[in-house]
Amino acid sequence: VKDPREVVAAKRDGRRVEDEDLREFVLGYARGEIPDYLAAAFLMAAYLHPLDGGETLVLTRAMIDSGVTLPLLSVSRPKVDKHSTGGVADGVTLVFAPLAASLGLAVAKLSGRGLGHTGGTLDKLEAIPGFRTALSAEEIERQVAEVGCVVAAQTEDLVPADGALYALRDATATVASVPLIAASVMSKKLAIGTDLVLLDVKAGSGAFMKTPESAAELAEACVSLARDWGRPCSAAISDMSQPLGAAVGNALDVAEAVEVLRGERPGRLTELAVLFAGRAVDALAGDGSGEDRARTALADGSALAAFGRMVEAQGGDGRVADDPWSVLPRAAVVLGTEPAEEGYLAEVDAEAIGRAATGLGAGRVRKGDPVDPAVGIVFHPKVGDRLNTGSELAEIHARSDDDAALAAERVRAAVRVSPDPVEPPALVYGWRST
Amino acid sequence: VKDPREVVAAKRDGRRVEDEDLREFVLGYARGEIPDYLAAAFLMAAYLHPLDGGETLVLTRAMIDSGVTLPLLSVSRPKVDKHSTGGVADGVTLVFAPLAASLGLAVAKLSGRGLGHTGGTLDKLEAIPGFRTALSAEEIERQVAEVGCVVAAQTEDLVPADGALYALRDATATVASVPLIAASVMSKKLAIGTDLVLLDVKAGSGAFMKTPESAAELAEACVSLARDWGRPCSAAISDMSQPLGAAVGNALDVAEAVEVLRGERPGRLTELAVLFAGRAVDALAGDGSGEDRARTALADGSALAAFGRMVEAQGGDGRVADDPWSVLPRAAVVLGTEPAEEGYLAEVDAEAIGRAATGLGAGRVRKGDPVDPAVGIVFHPKVGDRLNTGSELAEIHARSDDDAALAAERVRAAVRVSPDPVEPPALVYGWRST
Repeated sequence: VKDPREVVAAKRDGRRVEDEDLREFVLGYARGEIPDYLAAAFLMAAYLHPLDGGETLVLTRAMIDSGVTLPLLSVSRPKVDKHSTGGVADGVTLVFAPLAASLGLAVAKLSGRGLGHTGGTLDKLEAIPGFRTALSAEEIERQVAEVGCVVAAQTEDLVPADGALYALRDATATVASVPLIAASVMSKKLAIGTDLVLLDVKAGSGAFMKTPESAAELAEACVSLARDWGRPCSAAISDMSQPLGAAVGNALDVAEAVEVLRGERPGRLTELAVLFAGRAVDALAGDGSGEDRARTALADGSALAAFGRMVEAQGGDGRVADDPWSVLPRAAVVLGTEPAEEGYLAEVDAEAIGRAATGLGAGRVRKGDPVDPAVGIVFHPKVGDRLNTGSELAEIHARSDDDAALAAERVRAAVRVSPDPVEPPALVYGWRST
Repeated sequence: VKDPREVVAAKRDGRRVEDEDLREFVLGYARGEIPDYLAAAFLMAAYLHPLDGGETLVLTRAMIDSGVTLPLLSVSRPKVDKHSTGGVADGVTLVFAPLAASLGLAVAKLSGRGLGHTGGTLDKLEAIPGFRTALSAEEIERQVAEVGCVVAAQTEDLVPADGALYALRDATATVASVPLIAASVMSKKLAIGTDLVLLDVKAGSGAFMKTPESAAELAEACVSLARDWGRPCSAAISDMSQPLGAAVGNALDVAEAVEVLRGERPGRLTELAVLFAGRAVDALAGDGSGEDRARTALADGSALAAFGRMVEAQGGDGRVADDPWSVLPRAAVVLGTEPAEEGYLAEVDAEAIGRAATGLGAGRVRKGDPVDPAVGIVFHPKVGDRLNTGSELAEIHARSDDDAALAAERVRAAVRVSPDPVEPPALVYGWRST
């Protein structure tokens, strides 16, 4: 057996690590045989001498082989997965999963929890009374086959090496490496037996990648990894220079998703969900009319019905699909806030809005913290909109007047207003596909 | 308190770490508050973005402040310390310490043990029956004051952060960084209250630094650190392209040192010891005649007498100074070996000779392994010497015939013979001084 320090030394010196050595290193780390400090030295070396495509593939495969996979062999429909790199008011998954299911596809979406300024799909869905996200692999597969969609927590035995490596990267200032991010994202997608992976790589003030260029780099790394693996994949580079929807919270996001699923809330969140669902239909079962069919499914209630079936299959109160606020928890205080000045909305610090919501209790600062399903922010305008004093900029849902006042201050400080008209940013900057 | 990951991130990005942050990081590591994995990430970042002079000084000071120092306030003589970066048949300290003491200086030498192909001064001296190297700080100071020299094991509370960081560097492939080596070497020297630090930075096949250029780089980093600290320091870049003396072992080294101290063994080991002692005398107490005085002290028996006093002060059998083999342990098997071909000795793989001696049991592969004081190799010729078949190339001292035969093979394979005359290498390539 080779001295594992040689793997570290190779990467340290910018040399390519032998496939078998890298694989053994990763699997050894997952088994607890490679100590944290050696893996930390490797991660810093790999941060400063980024893994090449071949190494990233080997790392990804080893991470997947550290646990079990979810082949979904009993699911006969075309299977699609969709993943967002994380943003603010990013409720696309809540809409996409039932929408795609209503179009005849199967969606098996294993999700994570929110951290810092970004929300988590599981936290949002758990705002629905009774909704269970901790499903076994068998439950997940059965629900996908019977209902067409599931959104559940990633099971602990799926890609365990990713969880361990991500925690170590977070602890050692080595998160922001494109190949390491790509391996982390894609390992969890490739471990599930889907026919298509859709990625939403966010770019802007509310995203990890602050520019479309850096987001495109990550999108390319992920798509390239999927190509090497042999899995069809399309990645959008989408705008996160402002909150995508209006709701930044948990119950608030569910209520907004229901409006979108009812076809009653046109806008950027609806458009992005339609784009993803349309692309999935066209790729897996379609004739190029995917977007039209998606719009129809929102208009005719079939997407909303699929949402209701998914909620009930996972133990949630299905009335949420008909009358969200009859079942969702409400905050004690609701405070409207006005813009500080008139003009055109020129810029939004989406991360600051996300942090303000986290400050209210909607998100978590540390892993494992509880979240409050009721609180959050509804931020109304989009960049380019005209703001008038006296009109509402945002609605703060808080546990106390003090919390609400603080969040309102932060929201007002997070916007920049221009006296001149402002062009709205693109919704999608581009796509990368296998 | 700053997030210690910011220290790692700064070094990762090639930014200078703030003095106070770096100091807290190092002291926090020494206190066990900074985990190994975070320190490992820092070390890899510091390997790839080397510490600058200011950072190296802060690191060194923090390592020293992690423990106690040895000010030697009660020693009135001029105090000198001497350190070698490690080589093969490098018995200079055994000669230098009593030689300098016999010239009126005080030598407080805290030493380490051998590892890999390099021997350790403590291991050599412990070949003398009764010799104690584990002395308390009080014992060290008293002996320096009374006898003029001591060679003892580094106490555990002197620069404890260095031991911890060195072990972590060894475990994470981050040893070979010049600023980190310089901080490690100099922290242990600067923690002792001496008036002059002499360094012997070895260059060549038997040294860590394989070329005079890389050794000069390390010498400059160490001298620069001493200058910033305010401590006089001179560093020789000396040849380790072949064993320095003839003896590669423990008892064998002691016996050779006694011959040198008697003035009966001219050659490179004698010359280097005289150079160092002469330089110390000239710097601290002299009129430029240091080397002459050193030669006289070897010739008139005063250096040997100082050696005997040191041995007896540390519990060893003082007869070793008069008749070494009356007290030193002898190996069961002594085998002479001849060169494979005639010609001029052109090249010696000193590391291979060192490894052959370690293979006999004279050194250790892993920290904590025992060493056999009796075994080793006496390698006779120097580069440039004429070798004749039928004459002895080396004498193998072994525990068994098989061990001896294997070592003899390795020694023969470690030499390259040329039909044409070969120029001997320089003994010292140059000096760097504060």
